[in-house]
Amino acid sequence: MPPLLITLTTDFGPGSHYVAAMKGVILSLNPHANIIDLSHNHPPQDIATGALFWLQATQFFPPNAIHVAVIDPGVGSSRRILLFESPRGLFLAPDNGLGGWLADTHQPLKIRQVENRALWRPEVSATFHGRDIFAPVAAHLSLGRDPVEVGPIVQSCVRLPANKGERVGQRIEGEVIEIDSFGNLITNISREMLADVPTGESCRITCDEHETFGIFTTYSDQPPMTLIALVGSDDRLELAIVDDSAALMLGVKKGVKVVIVW
Amino acid sequence: MPPLLITLTTDFGPGSHYVAAMKGVILSLNPHANIIDLSHNHPPQDIATGALFWLQATQFFPPNAIHVAVIDPGVGSSRRILLFESPRGLFLAPDNGLGGWLADTHQPLKIRQVENRALWRPEVSATFHGRDIFAPVAAHLSLGRDPVEVGPIVQSCVRLPANKGERVGQRIEGEVIEIDSFGNLITNISREMLADVPTGESCRITCDEHETFGIFTTYSDQPPMTLIALVGSDDRLELAIVDDSAALMLGVKKGVKVVIVW
Amino acid sequence: MPPLLITLTTDFGPGSHYVAAMKGVILSLNPHANIIDLSHNHPPQDIATGALFWLQATQFFPPNAIHVAVIDPGVGSSRRILLFESPRGLFLAPDNGLGGWLADTHQPLKIRQVENRALWRPEVSATFHGRDIFAPVAAHLSLGRDPVEVGPIVQSCVRLPANKGERVGQRIEGEVIEIDSFGNLITNISREMLADVPTGESCRITCDEHETFGIFTTYSDQPPMTLIALVGSDDRLELAIVDDSAALMLGVKKGVKVVIVW
Repeated sequence: MPPLLITLTTDFGPGSHYVAAMKGVILSLNPHANIIDLSHNHPPQDIATGALFWLQATQFFPPNAIHVAVIDPGVGSSRRILLFESPRGLFLAPDNGLGGWLADTHQPLKIRQVENRALWRPEVSATFHGRDIFAPVAAHLSLGRDPVEVGPIVQSCVRLPANKGERVGQRIEGEVIEIDSFGNLITNISREMLADVPTGESCRITCDEHETFGIFTTYSDQPPMTLIALVGSDDRLELAIVDDSAALMLGVKKGVKVVIVW
Repeated sequence: MPPLLITLTTDFGPGSHYVAAMKGVILSLNPHANIIDLSHNHPPQDIATGALFWLQATQFFPPNAIHVAVIDPGVGSSRRILLFESPRGLFLAPDNGLGGWLADTHQPLKIRQVENRALWRPEVSATFHGRDIFAPVAAHLSLGRDPVEVGPIVQSCVRLPANKGERVGQRIEGEVIEIDSFGNLITNISREMLADVPTGESCRITCDEHETFGIFTTYSDQPPMTLIALVGSDDRLELAIVDDSAALMLGVKKGVKVVIVW
Repeated sequence: MPPLLITLTTDFGPGSHYVAAMKGVILSLNPHANIIDLSHNHPPQDIATGALFWLQATQFFPPNAIHVAVIDPGVGSSRRILLFESPRGLFLAPDNGLGGWLADTHQPLKIRQVENRALWRPEVSATFHGRDIFAPVAAHLSLGRDPVEVGPIVQSCVRLPANKGERVGQRIEGEVIEIDSFGNLITNISREMLADVPTGESCRITCDEHETFGIFTTYSDQPPMTLIALVGSDDRLELAIVDDSAALMLGVKKGVKVVIVW
């Protein structure tokens, strides 16, 4: 049997000893665990950014992986910790919205409240549940413990407001929700929403005061330094400058409005 | 038997080909080694920061792990390389203070001078012992070589001055020794030193020109934007701004004095 | 048999969900793969920097490793994807020069064009071949698939212009091609080129308007704050300020000329 995967997503910063502590706890309980870092770079305590990242970054893993996300401004308060049991794997996160979009996407789903202290570290600090609860629970699950032992099923979880573009007639309005390392501006307008939108020149896309016409397939469909719209590998509309950074060239940040009219 | 863990801590920078070289050397000797990156982000050649990190980051790993730290401004000089054999694992580092605090903490301890060239790469450069000595020695140890083969026992190692707060009567004086990704200000005042300090409002904590009263349990014990003192997950006093960055809001850097009076 | 190594080098940025997607695809096909991150920090789309890094970072790995590099501004265009079969391992990269220097170094070599779609993800996006082609091909190779299945042998690949210093009489002219985390200035002047150059004071090295005399063995051969020339662990001439950053102190960037005369 292959070693079970545990992925880690936190806002502790790369090279943080908090991350090292989580890995030490996991490997002390399960020396065979295969720990995969997804990201420790999230803007501290930015739950929406983390929720979007987590949904995207975990989607290609095998269904027996255990995904742990610790972006947890409410640590030590009465916020719950949840285990999402889904056909796409197990997901462990504080109940602050981090797992809400996953819950919508990965059906059928059971949600459990993590409360069996037998699976935690004996002493639980008030400020670092990543080390004292999340890590040992993930390690026990990777050893084959049944999720039922983690805690009882609950009926709901905190959900962030949906972050999707809106369509009214021949107009779609969305916004930039992510900027990648290339400076591409990725929006919340999905491929689905574009289903009957003409992709040719009659389709006008604006972002801030910038505009471009038509929706293309890949970056090399236009000459260098051109502003281009295309549907990216995550099935969402993105704006790019061919061979350069749209974010830098246009001075656009997350949250800027993107409008398509045709 | 589980694959033996080798952890790496360096100041080579994330994504450095120096780190890649160390991993390549280790995996060439022991393809089953499980290499865990702890950090490659240390301020270059800052031994004190590295020593504190190494002590914290390694403490939750299983006792059969091999920890390697290469922050090594004296590479190529006559500085020694040491192997610390402790109940908490094996630790390999240049003798420049990196392992000094570990040596104080992890007793009983044997310290060996790394000098058996049979465990090194055949050609040793003058500037990269991480690749040519540390990596192959760690790999050989992970293959089950007895530490006795590494070199003879020595009686002492370089120790950095202790970095602990001081108590005089009803006053403790310490300083900020670490700032985490959340901007929390972590001090060198330990939980032990606070044993009989009143935690309520009669206890006044100052940091630079800022002050707060009382010592709390977790961040959510006070309203957002409040300056709060608490004992963190590393058992040291820290100062935080609830839901924000104390480092940014207060403009405080490492080394700033923190005083408790009651 | 040890788990087969797959190393990853990209310009996606640390903590990118693009990297996570590649890992998920690999581990879904081969749960036993041992994935090693080399770097995800390259300046976006900077092929020359990536090619140099890839050559250096992979050279110490065991010869059965599979190395994947995705710095791929031409994704979605007609650029080919190549598999380099060499005595030093398998190397998978877009045909844009990334593998050109490897091809010169690792002989004898076969180059194959990656075109067997049976080894790709069923749906291939136009913008993310890292996930849809490179990751699954690497995973299949790690499962023991013969490289012959990847595609037919081709006779050539894109090569970047050689980046080597030039010698005319008693003068060598090169440039700074890399700056490491310590601020050392690493040049394209190899140890070989220096074979009959006197290393003592009669040898004058200049970099921008700065000069130093003699070529030393290690950083500690001169007092702190001295500009020193030495042949580094990669067998290339480098300039360093003892115990400080030459890059910061001298204000030197990549591309600055370095001249040796004697």
